[in-house]
Amino acid sequence: MRAEIISIGTELTTGRNLDTNSQWLSRRLAEMGVPVHWHTTIADDLDANLEAFRIAVRRAGLVLSSGGLGPTQDDLTREVLAKVAGVELVFDQESFDRIAEMFRRRGRTMPEGNRVQAYFPAGATVLPNDRGTAPGIWMRLGDCHVAAMPGVPSEMFAMFEAHIRPRLFALGAGGSVLIERKINCFGAGESQVEEKLLDLTRRGHVPEVGITASDATISLRIFASAPTREEALAQIRPVESTIRERLGDLVFGADDEELQDVVVRLLGEGRRTLAVAEGVTAGLIGERLARVHGASACFRGGVIAYDNTMKVQLLGVPESLIEEHGAVSAAVAEAMAEGCRRLLHADLAVSTVGIAGPGGGSVDKPVGLVFAGLAWEGGTLSRSSSWLATRAEVQSRTAKMALNLARLHLIRPAE
Amino acid sequence: MRAEIISIGTELTTGRNLDTNSQWLSRRLAEMGVPVHWHTTIADDLDANLEAFRIAVRRAGLVLSSGGLGPTQDDLTREVLAKVAGVELVFDQESFDRIAEMFRRRGRTMPEGNRVQAYFPAGATVLPNDRGTAPGIWMRLGDCHVAAMPGVPSEMFAMFEAHIRPRLFALGAGGSVLIERKINCFGAGESQVEEKLLDLTRRGHVPEVGITASDATISLRIFASAPTREEALAQIRPVESTIRERLGDLVFGADDEELQDVVVRLLGEGRRTLAVAEGVTAGLIGERLARVHGASACFRGGVIAYDNTMKVQLLGVPESLIEEHGAVSAAVAEAMAEGCRRLLHADLAVSTVGIAGPGGGSVDKPVGLVFAGLAWEGGTLSRSSSWLATRAEVQSRTAKMALNLARLHLIRPAE
Repeated sequence: MRAEIISIGTELTTGRNLDTNSQWLSRRLAEMGVPVHWHTTIADDLDANLEAFRIAVRRAGLVLSSGGLGPTQDDLTREVLAKVAGVELVFDQESFDRIAEMFRRRGRTMPEGNRVQAYFPAGATVLPNDRGTAPGIWMRLGDCHVAAMPGVPSEMFAMFEAHIRPRLFALGAGGSVLIERKINCFGAGESQVEEKLLDLTRRGHVPEVGITASDATISLRIFASAPTREEALAQIRPVESTIRERLGDLVFGADDEELQDVVVRLLGEGRRTLAVAEGVTAGLIGERLARVHGASACFRGGVIAYDNTMKVQLLGVPESLIEEHGAVSAAVAEAMAEGCRRLLHADLAVSTVGIAGPGGGSVDKPVGLVFAGLAWEGGTLSRSSSWLATRAEVQSRTAKMALNLARLHLIRPAE
Repeated sequence: MRAEIISIGTELTTGRNLDTNSQWLSRRLAEMGVPVHWHTTIADDLDANLEAFRIAVRRAGLVLSSGGLGPTQDDLTREVLAKVAGVELVFDQESFDRIAEMFRRRGRTMPEGNRVQAYFPAGATVLPNDRGTAPGIWMRLGDCHVAAMPGVPSEMFAMFEAHIRPRLFALGAGGSVLIERKINCFGAGESQVEEKLLDLTRRGHVPEVGITASDATISLRIFASAPTREEALAQIRPVESTIRERLGDLVFGADDEELQDVVVRLLGEGRRTLAVAEGVTAGLIGERLARVHGASACFRGGVIAYDNTMKVQLLGVPESLIEEHGAVSAAVAEAMAEGCRRLLHADLAVSTVGIAGPGGGSVDKPVGLVFAGLAWEGGTLSRSSSWLATRAEVQSRTAKMALNLARLHLIRPAE
């Protein structure tokens, strides 16, 4: 069964938005052994939609589309599928009730426009949308299975997992498996990491090992393809062990694991609490920790000391320290962490100071210079870095430095 | 002249890599007044390539492809274009010399495999590649102009600018301009907004008006195409005025402007300062404000009161208030904002509390229930919402609610 993915939206063909749905769906299908041969992207235009679906159902055994299911006049997918199938659109009371109920739960009246979302091509199966108002559509067009999903990524992801994946299994997908294992590192550059792994990353190595860098996180990706999941995993396991052995503490996690996930897990295991004193990161560390389910058990909160006076007034950093070393210094980062740890009665605290740019740099302290601090009951420490990067990247990487200090302390406490 | 963009590579159809070339090319073409109607992505597969190019040259006046020009066996674009044109591949000595020279300059011998990069469909124009070994191809297939470029983004960008753009101008592109204007709103749903603008968003309206929702921000997109920039703007202006008139305070900005940009601008204009007391958003508001250049002049910082005890200890929220109303309540949100405003000596403070989920909900207070609070010298107020969304979405939308409270107060102070 060869698959085609169709993305619908003028915001995509004009280049206003980047299409990430096609990639996401391609990965899910690859994992199930369903090869994707085509991605097609079209504007919210009736003729282009009709042609794209007609071509797709002729050449593919499975077509997954996203977009065009909203309540507005440029949402055409319902109409297009009905026309391609040569059937009428019919009203589905149950879907209508679900949509109305969704508005009621939010204390709002359903606008008349949303009524069109309860119409479906005759004979199609309605796929409930648990995250939004647009139901999806599952139907057969000739020899081809077609699933139409909403374009909002979170709604599309949830609908695929809940309603499409089981149907693909039922159709016999999953005959061979492609598995990707990602090993994530922080604390060294891409080429430093690659130098230790040149024998694995060379072209032709089985399984294939690739290296990518994203916002100072370096990831090794191991790709294995085999008839069964077990065989693919058997290819991956020894390579993963070698990588972990050679990289040691640089490795913080696997697959989608981020530094904050690891920190929350380690805090939970040690029944420790963490607080944050954020200068240059201005809330980013807190926001990332709070993304992790279960963070509330170990993350106390913190202080956003964006204005320098906050460092003194709230965190008790001595003014003399700022005068002597400057606010962007190891001494101030460590004093902020310790002040925060005491103020919030936490076991550990991390802190950040720095110059995110684009302005504010000097010869001594250039844009990109940052310090991350850590305080625990027995002391404080800090690390500095000088990032050559945009403002947002400097902030993000400094947040990672601080989280990494907490991680390293939790796996191997400083004296 | 309608354009199609073809991206070639198994790394794209398998989802291993994200296709960003199509978006980049779409934007460049839109700016030149060439509408892109289709993106097609295909694997490194001969039949799929042949079919894709045959369909494209039939329906489009311009086809831009990227990928498939490398030296390896799965690079098929040269062969595909020759087959579609019905011509032979011919050797080009000049290109060969350029490629060999490129290797020499890097102190390396040219591998035999790179020789294939000097073959081109008979009659085609060779496009030099200043950044890599793969030359591009410019040729005519029937009524359609076709440009094949390498897939490496930096090589593709440079080749487009140096060799494709001038040819498109020569073909008369750029004789018209496409301008997009985006009007951004917050505080109402997509269909509520559209109901007020049905006459503008109907199919066939000139200029075209589309509506999109992204994380509770509703955007009206006005697309105008005209021979000159001035004429396009003249089409947009009255429609923009109508939209702003009908939507009033729902409109917060235009184009890429975000709520935090507007809040920082308004704070600067009024020489006011802002602080944040973040419960459910855990630092997200601070992080967003700090993204804005110039935020340090008006953003003081704040408190991340993730743990409930922080609300009492740091922000001075009376324990009795939490007992009576619960932490997720209008009363607590307002008390947090006022406590934060006093603690940080700020003119305004915003706050958030809520249940981001997935756990922690109850019948009375379901997952997704949030309150945003605002405190100013003369009082406090709050707004609640009940989001049906993921944890990250709940947090992001609640941050927007709080920023929007500050915005509304700054443009029209509450009594």
